[in-house]
Amino acid sequence: MFSFMETPFRELIARKRDGGALTPAEWHRVVADAMSARVPDYQLAALLMAAYIRGVTAEETAALTAALAASGEQLAFPDGPYVDKHSTGGVGDVVTLVAVPWAAACGARVPKLSGRGLGHTGGTIDKLSAIPGVTTKLPVRAFKDQVEEVGCAIAEASALAPADKIFYALRDATATVSSRPLIVASILSKKLAGGAPAFVFDVKCGAGAFIPEEEEARALAADLIAGARAHGRRAVAVLSAMDQPLGNSIGNALEVGAAAAALRGEGPADVLDLSFAVAREMLALAGVASGRAGERLLTSQLLNGAAFAQLDEMVRAQGAGEGWLDELPRAEYDEDITAPRAGVITRLDARALAHAAAALGAAREAVDDVIDPAVGVTVHKKVGAAVAAGEKILTLHYNDARRLAAAREWAASAIVVGDAAAPARLIIDVIR
Amino acid sequence: MFSFMETPFRELIARKRDGGALTPAEWHRVVADAMSARVPDYQLAALLMAAYIRGVTAEETAALTAALAASGEQLAFPDGPYVDKHSTGGVGDVVTLVAVPWAAACGARVPKLSGRGLGHTGGTIDKLSAIPGVTTKLPVRAFKDQVEEVGCAIAEASALAPADKIFYALRDATATVSSRPLIVASILSKKLAGGAPAFVFDVKCGAGAFIPEEEEARALAADLIAGARAHGRRAVAVLSAMDQPLGNSIGNALEVGAAAAALRGEGPADVLDLSFAVAREMLALAGVASGRAGERLLTSQLLNGAAFAQLDEMVRAQGAGEGWLDELPRAEYDEDITAPRAGVITRLDARALAHAAAALGAAREAVDDVIDPAVGVTVHKKVGAAVAAGEKILTLHYNDARRLAAAREWAASAIVVGDAAAPARLIIDVIR
Repeated sequence: MFSFMETPFRELIARKRDGGALTPAEWHRVVADAMSARVPDYQLAALLMAAYIRGVTAEETAALTAALAASGEQLAFPDGPYVDKHSTGGVGDVVTLVAVPWAAACGARVPKLSGRGLGHTGGTIDKLSAIPGVTTKLPVRAFKDQVEEVGCAIAEASALAPADKIFYALRDATATVSSRPLIVASILSKKLAGGAPAFVFDVKCGAGAFIPEEEEARALAADLIAGARAHGRRAVAVLSAMDQPLGNSIGNALEVGAAAAALRGEGPADVLDLSFAVAREMLALAGVASGRAGERLLTSQLLNGAAFAQLDEMVRAQGAGEGWLDELPRAEYDEDITAPRAGVITRLDARALAHAAAALGAAREAVDDVIDPAVGVTVHKKVGAAVAAGEKILTLHYNDARRLAAAREWAASAIVVGDAAAPARLIIDVIR
Repeated sequence: MFSFMETPFRELIARKRDGGALTPAEWHRVVADAMSARVPDYQLAALLMAAYIRGVTAEETAALTAALAASGEQLAFPDGPYVDKHSTGGVGDVVTLVAVPWAAACGARVPKLSGRGLGHTGGTIDKLSAIPGVTTKLPVRAFKDQVEEVGCAIAEASALAPADKIFYALRDATATVSSRPLIVASILSKKLAGGAPAFVFDVKCGAGAFIPEEEEARALAADLIAGARAHGRRAVAVLSAMDQPLGNSIGNALEVGAAAAALRGEGPADVLDLSFAVAREMLALAGVASGRAGERLLTSQLLNGAAFAQLDEMVRAQGAGEGWLDELPRAEYDEDITAPRAGVITRLDARALAHAAAALGAAREAVDDVIDPAVGVTVHKKVGAAVAAGEKILTLHYNDARRLAAAREWAASAIVVGDAAAPARLIIDVIR
């Protein structure tokens, strides 16, 4: 009491508990204490719960973001058309695998650092890892070289913002994930550490998204943009719907195949539309081309094969063999899920389908789970499609028959056939 | 999702986070998981913080209380005049050492189970332990036998409500102590497990109390009484002021000496008044005597020496030698703290004086600290007393000169001399 000691951690907790704010220096200290394990998990958990309930100011969020970003390696790029993108995560979400090479084929340089998926959707790293021979563990030097020489690289962000991993694991265990400022700090800290001067955020809402409500997703997009700008970066967000799965493929190798098909102009339309919107914003932020000019560039680079060639070059630079697209693993067995009655598909629940794919082994539900890259779900009919009774709506691709029952149950529960469907929404807004 | 699993702990946290209630079965499960270490501390900490901020209903509090009480040994007494008391803790608070033998000398049977002190005040167990030879670790059998044969016993409650210890340690570290329902559950669970059919709660408010505000202390008293009744016990609360220390002695051996003096009718008045009020309620709840009859009984048992004889018998039953009162340890050195100016003492901050005594070694600030039973503070003048400049107000009793500087600073900071003092309050109310 008469010595000059640091504020006890308990007093920081008490202040947040009572609705007060921590100073930027105090947030840096919280992160440093977490990194050095000077603060026990239970004190950190109590602070995070208090922050969840009482809120975190914009200034606090910026300080926490900076502290998390500074907890590990921090990349930087020279002047140039660098742009990164981030998706809040969806089912069948192959936009990264499409938009990143597409924008790079137009002249943007895309240093894309991704996490592995945890929860109901696989991450981009898991998808790329389905390609035989591909590595996503690039040393920083190799990663930066590939961005310069190839135009884009997608690698695992294991050394970035390590404190965020500590916070995230604790939030996951203590029901404090769904706090907007904590989400903003988590996403932005990794993007800041990744070093790009500009970001496009692909923010999803709907049944299969991390954030179901459109208004909350819109607010997250606005906070991500404001947070990026507060740290001197440029940013735009594309707000899109994740009610039904994006595209027709769920599962790691299936989605890689779907991305390749999209970059060859084969569709499906929703994957191409959303990837186009994201890539267009990437080109504009990178200063390559904006408005109609950017759209024309994207269209011509798709039609002339440059976009697919860029994906091909990227995955080969990361270790894939020449015939990688034909070497994607395939599941041994199939089972169809059919329409219970004639009518129109009124609902195709993205989250239930993600659980179906996860039940087959496409995603890890715990950190240690091993993913089967071959398994997944093909979607033959989407919301609004007319179906006859017994007509094929889904195909489950599986290797382990013991996993089929749960997947079948999830898949059947995802489908609602009615008499008329409202038009499905996709791109809701672009927030600048 | 399709298996029949227990609700994940995270979902209990999320429900409380959002202001919902846990069922009685869920609170029992929380306590069982804590006892078996099936739930990690960080999840428990998150739940406690959510409970702190969002509140806990009366039904939830009753369930948590019962679950904590059932986590260890549970005593029971046959029909008879059994009554227990509990103090929320104060500085110089010797009421237990006075009221327990006093009520027993009148015919009540008092099975008093106490905790060790942690924080700024020593516990009754620490005080009794200052008497050479006394043990407070009584096996249940010996404890119950002593209550029957001697009339009262004061022992350590180490086997009662062990889950409460887990919860309390975590609350202490995570700034979630000062939640009324959590306090009620903590106090009541130990009392219920102690087995008495009736309790007198000595609830304090003011600067030196655990709960400074009178209204909050009054609400705690009401909740303790309601909680006790919900579990089929009788209860009354005495609400008293803890602005300045009670009595003239702070420190373990010093307080034992003070209790003995009070039981010999030597005062001081505030110790006798409050102990009288508590003992009177104990006699009434025990069915020994109520109203004027109880007061007359207490007065006569004090004046005829029976009350002191009861204390003497109790401590000798617990191992003290015949001359125990003369054998109490005394500190080697003294230093006086004097009035900075002439006037009237307007404030004598109990908490600062507790810190002064703790700085000398009278209380543990951490679980592992070793207490020096001899050290402490004597209070010569209390609020309202006129003093000359330089007149002695306090004496510090110390053994280790290195500990003196901090104690002196705390002690000096406790004293305010002004021109006129409002009358000091003591017994504020008796809540039935």
